[in-house]
Amino acid sequence: MSTEGKGVLLKADPIANTFRDEIKSALASSPRPPKLVGILATNSAPSRFYSEFTKKQCDALGVEFVLRKVGAAADESLAPGEGVEEAIIEANEDDTVDGIMVYYPIFGVQQDHYLQQIVSPYKDVEGLHFKFHYNLYHNIRFLDPKTLGSSLPAINNAPPAVNDEPPAGYVKSILPCTPLAIVKCLEYIGVYNKILPYGDRAYGKTITVINRSEVVGRPLAALLANDGARVFSVDIDSIQEYTKRPRQSAEERKYHPRHVVHPTSLSLQECLAVSDVVVSAVPSAEYKVKTAWLKDGCVCVNVAADKNFEADVREKASLYLPTIGKVTIMMLLRNL
Amino acid sequence: MSTEGKGVLLKADPIANTFRDEIKSALASSPRPPKLVGILATNSAPSRFYSEFTKKQCDALGVEFVLRKVGAAADESLAPGEGVEEAIIEANEDDTVDGIMVYYPIFGVQQDHYLQQIVSPYKDVEGLHFKFHYNLYHNIRFLDPKTLGSSLPAINNAPPAVNDEPPAGYVKSILPCTPLAIVKCLEYIGVYNKILPYGDRAYGKTITVINRSEVVGRPLAALLANDGARVFSVDIDSIQEYTKRPRQSAEERKYHPRHVVHPTSLSLQECLAVSDVVVSAVPSAEYKVKTAWLKDGCVCVNVAADKNFEADVREKASLYLPTIGKVTIMMLLRNL
Repeated sequence: MSTEGKGVLLKADPIANTFRDEIKSALASSPRPPKLVGILATNSAPSRFYSEFTKKQCDALGVEFVLRKVGAAADESLAPGEGVEEAIIEANEDDTVDGIMVYYPIFGVQQDHYLQQIVSPYKDVEGLHFKFHYNLYHNIRFLDPKTLGSSLPAINNAPPAVNDEPPAGYVKSILPCTPLAIVKCLEYIGVYNKILPYGDRAYGKTITVINRSEVVGRPLAALLANDGARVFSVDIDSIQEYTKRPRQSAEERKYHPRHVVHPTSLSLQECLAVSDVVVSAVPSAEYKVKTAWLKDGCVCVNVAADKNFEADVREKASLYLPTIGKVTIMMLLRNL
Repeated sequence: MSTEGKGVLLKADPIANTFRDEIKSALASSPRPPKLVGILATNSAPSRFYSEFTKKQCDALGVEFVLRKVGAAADESLAPGEGVEEAIIEANEDDTVDGIMVYYPIFGVQQDHYLQQIVSPYKDVEGLHFKFHYNLYHNIRFLDPKTLGSSLPAINNAPPAVNDEPPAGYVKSILPCTPLAIVKCLEYIGVYNKILPYGDRAYGKTITVINRSEVVGRPLAALLANDGARVFSVDIDSIQEYTKRPRQSAEERKYHPRHVVHPTSLSLQECLAVSDVVVSAVPSAEYKVKTAWLKDGCVCVNVAADKNFEADVREKASLYLPTIGKVTIMMLLRNL
């Protein structure tokens, strides 16, 4: 079969490498290597694989990685997840630990969400604590580190962001790893336009995000819309439009412009027909985005473990990223 | 049909009334009536009904109730949930507001869970903030009110509970309303034995809880097991046993005995055959607990909006509570 007219298949490696160098030089100026604790509580093959992958990446970069196995991962007679909460609390309280990552899924969406709140926000390299989601949804990019210790959502009192450097006394808010990795991929391939002002670099782009979970789809849609894109957020029973425009209040324009969400009457086919970028993160091997529905020359990003695009996706897509896991782990180490 | 041999049908009213009197006398000694804000963000009939019911109960007791309608509840052209997060933040920041309740479901389990973390734990009368779940799972009954302001899970440093009065400098931790209401029903009907020591009054009882959500089933199973019961926690794909005995470590015995969770090989039929109490909270009109599987003389409590027990449940049950909503709202006002 001829590859003429076919789009480019883009592996995650070159994108991950740009961050690898950045992390290496940051580590070189650090007094001691940071220590990351990985907590593995199940025997699931993807979690085991991902924990080994984390170790390899940490070793290569000079980050200290300690894998703590609990529950069924430590002893087959134990239940999956047994002891995981205790292991998190121990790592929270251990001053030598800088970062904690937990290999999900363990119990299921609800109980895993509870566990994500137990990880100290000071050590949450995955960015899964609700405080980080709150900052993302509210487009609060910088925070006073003291407010991380509060159980209340942050009051936004940082000056407006003019570039990605925090003002004195503030630090960058952690962003959830997977949505951040997707944004970094879109920056790499030029969907984000660096000539546009900081904080608005996706303006003019229409993006469809398929999945609206709290871990990937909803934060990603919000992040892209906060950066100026028109976003269609698609889940099994509804399609919503996320945009900064045109329903921005005077208050929002002045201080911390953030996206708003409206229902839309467009169908998935109509959304795809106008989308410059399609990101799919549906956890199902059966789900496929129809190539016939894609806009010619669009960019397609597969975030799911299974392939959510048809084999002929590059007949329509100008660029196809089949996997972004290597970038995600770099974001995690960067957060650390 | 003869009612001979049939168990007692117990309405929630007499149980709710015992708390109504307690709340009334507490309010009589309060300098001003407390203010509860209810946030209604959808047009769903059960949520509208429940908000009217809250108002009626507040009026009768002399609690100030303000219903804040947002999204589709305020204007049919708006989406369900639009503006709900902003309404929560406003109530958090309003010093005249003592308590906040939000009528769920709004967006679905995941996004609703996010909203539950946005409500200030100082005003969370429903007890849905992860800090209260943490205290419940860890059997931390009293807390230093200062720790409520921290984003970290509480360190358990209160002296062990000898009765239900907090030691000086501590307050009772809020318990999630629905699980607490079920416990209060079980106290009323004598499943909790007041002759046993405080904190262990369900010892000797075997209880099956059908549903393992983070809002009802899992906290309820933990609460009952922390109080000494042997609990089978049943969900669609597994059955777990929650118990304080016999896997208690020396550390736990000394300081804050809490339940442990193990998988069990018993089937639902086997669990029901030995259960003194069966609580069902399955959100489905189709789901029914088989009367034939119940232990003769057991107590059955229906927590779901739909009836989870068959029409002939009292052929086996000695007591049947078809609904506990009135007790739940009393718990909410008591938390306030």
